[in-house]
Amino acid sequence: AKPKVGYTYSEGSGYLNNLEEIYGKKVKEVKSVAVVVKKRTSVYDAIVKLFLEDVGSLYVIDDDEILVGVLSRKDLLKMTIGETDINQMPVSVVMTRMPHLFTVKDEDAVFEAAKKIVDYEVDSLPVVEQLTDQAGEVIEDKFKVIGRVSKTTIARIFVDCKLQI
Amino acid sequence: AKPKVGYTYSEGSGYLNNLEEIYGKKVKEVKSVAVVVKKRTSVYDAIVKLFLEDVGSLYVIDDDEILVGVLSRKDLLKMTIGETDINQMPVSVVMTRMPHLFTVKDEDAVFEAAKKIVDYEVDSLPVVEQLTDQAGEVIEDKFKVIGRVSKTTIARIFVDCKLQI
Repeated sequence: AKPKVGYTYSEGSGYLNNLEEIYGKKVKEVKSVAVVVKKRTSVYDAIVKLFLEDVGSLYVIDDDEILVGVLSRKDLLKMTIGETDINQMPVSVVMTRMPHLFTVKDEDAVFEAAKKIVDYEVDSLPVVEQLTDQAGEVIEDKFKVIGRVSKTTIARIFVDCKLQI
Repeated sequence: AKPKVGYTYSEGSGYLNNLEEIYGKKVKEVKSVAVVVKKRTSVYDAIVKLFLEDVGSLYVIDDDEILVGVLSRKDLLKMTIGETDINQMPVSVVMTRMPHLFTVKDEDAVFEAAKKIVDYEVDSLPVVEQLTDQAGEVIEDKFKVIGRVSKTTIARIFVDCKLQI
């Protein structure tokens, strides 16, 4: 068990908790598993996957497993009220595409992830890892998806902190 | 401006903030406006409203403006992958209905709302007010909707607290 460093009584009601410690937690400590689909997946199949995996967003990858887009429930809903045949339409047409999407890294602080979610009004952020070439050089804008941080993650942290007090 | 009661330096890195104060905030201080539809609204029109109002859930009311159900993006998505004509189908068929839904009241603590959202795995909670009859007696299970608390609300509180430190 973690030592309760920094805990102290408040003058009035109850405890103080070290909020800085909570905000400074790393994304890798709180992330959940990413659910991905290939870019040629149909909108219909993506919706089915969303239900089967019980998530709010799907991440879209290409054949080399590089992140190419993000699919929200709203992206998917938007397609279903049009005239399009969602069995024929690939998710690549409706997704938010790289580089117009927001990501976090394993070493980022939870606060940073929460702030991006709030500021950019997204439901979740893919946790990514930058690809490197054989010489170990970073390949610009090529990311592998290694997790997910969502509004649910943030709400859960908010609740869990209280239960730990 | 609120006096920063209970703030103090931590031994190591940064500040302590009074988490109890944050958790104890009342729902009425943080709620946002509820977006409602009538129970005979079509699934199609509800989806359009969801986009126009830019929310994640809609609350369904009857002709007396009593809360009768909640519609999530997933409830709506589920309908669009079936064979049903979403122009003909009323939302009352797909909504989660009273009394099988979770609500909060103005005087509840933010923590309680967050815990319900996490425990019951919902995106948002309608903030409700119990109806009373002419004698001032509470009418069981009859609620008016007076707001909304969502995962976004919780994430925003989480971020704002840090910015106030």
